[in-house]
Amino acid sequence: MEPVAAESGGVDVLGIGNAIVDVVAYAEDRLLEQLDLVKGAMTLVDESRCEFLYRRMGPAHEVSGGSCANTMAALASLGGRAAYIGRVRDDQLGEVFGHDIRAAGVTFRSRPSTEGPSTARCLVFVTPDAQRTMATYLGACVELAPEDVDPELVRAAEITYLEGYLWDRPEAKAACRKAAAICHRAGRKLALTLSDPFCVDRWRGEFRELVTREVDILFANEAEITSLYEVADFDRALQEVRRHVHFAVLTRGARGSVVVRGEEVHVIDAVPPDRLLDTTGAGDLYAAGFLRGFTAGLDLGTCGRLGSLCAAEIIAQYGARAERPLRPLFDRVNGAGP
Amino acid sequence: MEPVAAESGGVDVLGIGNAIVDVVAYAEDRLLEQLDLVKGAMTLVDESRCEFLYRRMGPAHEVSGGSCANTMAALASLGGRAAYIGRVRDDQLGEVFGHDIRAAGVTFRSRPSTEGPSTARCLVFVTPDAQRTMATYLGACVELAPEDVDPELVRAAEITYLEGYLWDRPEAKAACRKAAAICHRAGRKLALTLSDPFCVDRWRGEFRELVTREVDILFANEAEITSLYEVADFDRALQEVRRHVHFAVLTRGARGSVVVRGEEVHVIDAVPPDRLLDTTGAGDLYAAGFLRGFTAGLDLGTCGRLGSLCAAEIIAQYGARAERPLRPLFDRVNGAGP
Repeated sequence: MEPVAAESGGVDVLGIGNAIVDVVAYAEDRLLEQLDLVKGAMTLVDESRCEFLYRRMGPAHEVSGGSCANTMAALASLGGRAAYIGRVRDDQLGEVFGHDIRAAGVTFRSRPSTEGPSTARCLVFVTPDAQRTMATYLGACVELAPEDVDPELVRAAEITYLEGYLWDRPEAKAACRKAAAICHRAGRKLALTLSDPFCVDRWRGEFRELVTREVDILFANEAEITSLYEVADFDRALQEVRRHVHFAVLTRGARGSVVVRGEEVHVIDAVPPDRLLDTTGAGDLYAAGFLRGFTAGLDLGTCGRLGSLCAAEIIAQYGARAERPLRPLFDRVNGAGP
Repeated sequence: MEPVAAESGGVDVLGIGNAIVDVVAYAEDRLLEQLDLVKGAMTLVDESRCEFLYRRMGPAHEVSGGSCANTMAALASLGGRAAYIGRVRDDQLGEVFGHDIRAAGVTFRSRPSTEGPSTARCLVFVTPDAQRTMATYLGACVELAPEDVDPELVRAAEITYLEGYLWDRPEAKAACRKAAAICHRAGRKLALTLSDPFCVDRWRGEFRELVTREVDILFANEAEITSLYEVADFDRALQEVRRHVHFAVLTRGARGSVVVRGEEVHVIDAVPPDRLLDTTGAGDLYAAGFLRGFTAGLDLGTCGRLGSLCAAEIIAQYGARAERPLRPLFDRVNGAGP
């Protein structure tokens, strides 16, 4: 029997997202050009394009991914109580995804699909500058639907955390709407990450309305927030955020992050990593650190610093799932560590 | 169409081995104790034990492995012409294995099994001291048989490189015998790696005869060579090697390596790694460096130094497949690099 955080007295954060296995390979910039991939972006691809790209990709390794799932795995590794909802198929990669998220300590009870497309995969091309360029085949993720949202789990969670990527599929979006309604009725908090500037482009109108009316905590990076408000620089986006959103966590890569809640504003430095190998997961891990601190009742500045520590940890390795337990980082900011 | 080194003017090294996908996870020592695993060793397990161990394993990542396949992938990454024979199943992990070895530039034409056990996997537990403890489910590898050995490929290869692990299955051993006979009739060289001290324990008599009569280049680490001759220390093993084997490459971890060919003896220092994260693949990569140098006509001391450079590269990362191209290491020892 897997450990079920939900059954042992509540959940800090329930994440809902696309359940994806990452296929990560080193690539030179000229390969991206040859393959007509937009550097730094996540592009959705169909199965045949995915197969074509995989054949051209270098030797790779596989690691469970999915932005929101990465955040939940890291939250659990930090000692938080995390749960996750997402769809895989009953194939080898689906087994890998389920194993990894449960082994990380996350409650994951979504049943795998027994027919239809295979488990989703994301081809991640890591260039020498440590940037990642992604091509995602959504596969079984397209089966995610409102009936996958377990109302008990939503009510048990202090925060329900959605990823913007889910807006790309109508049924997944409906699942998010259902979760949001249950969450608010239960007096819980709803969080959203904007996921990707191109995703914001596709759903700008809906996202603007959502962040103004329904989202309690907004996560976005600089490219996403400037895309949301169609402004040219970060400070202009910040002014828009302060007019429309009560509580936002805005990440800026090496330039750190800004946390805004009403009148409260924190400008937090990035933590320089031991080495810069692969930026995959920097935003996901920042969110995990922030949410871990927030649900533990730490002040917002400390939450941001824990986010920065987690981001620095993940960009010093390949992939977005930490190779070593993250708990010592929480202990450090919480005054219990060395 | 994959690049086929064999069709473009010969092969430096043809490897025959167990085609395995590694499932690599960080583990505390006490988990090994709880699971009754022999630290530092490779244990063969059946499917149900493999499933049991996987459920207890932490979050993992998957990367193509197999000792001999690791060596061939690294040889190709160093700019050598490599080919590989091994059996996978036509499942997702088999697809991963085939992709990775071909993408590394290795000629791999073994057809996947369409029935029978799934692609082999090796659960690799990496402890804080960077040691790896392995449990291998051989799966589709048990289907490897003499008919998989393509005589053309053996004749095209300057060296045929076998892994001792193959002795654990009678049909695979028969495949090795067939390859050895073709290799010698064609006036080519036969190389063998002893793979693992417990494997040597299981096949000591046969291995002793083999290395004396048939093997042109023997690869072994300290534990394996002392096990082969049942002696207490390295120097005693070395004296036995010099009596029985014309050409041997003996690795000793941080204590470096010793290369013996007739009267010629080289004692080569290890290269300190940037960091020590996971010793998986140190021996495989040393062999790749050595074989790349040897087939390029470099002197034995330089071959050993290239082996040491490759080993240092791989122990600074998780897993036994290099994350970045190895060619610069070859260029460095060959006087062409920076």
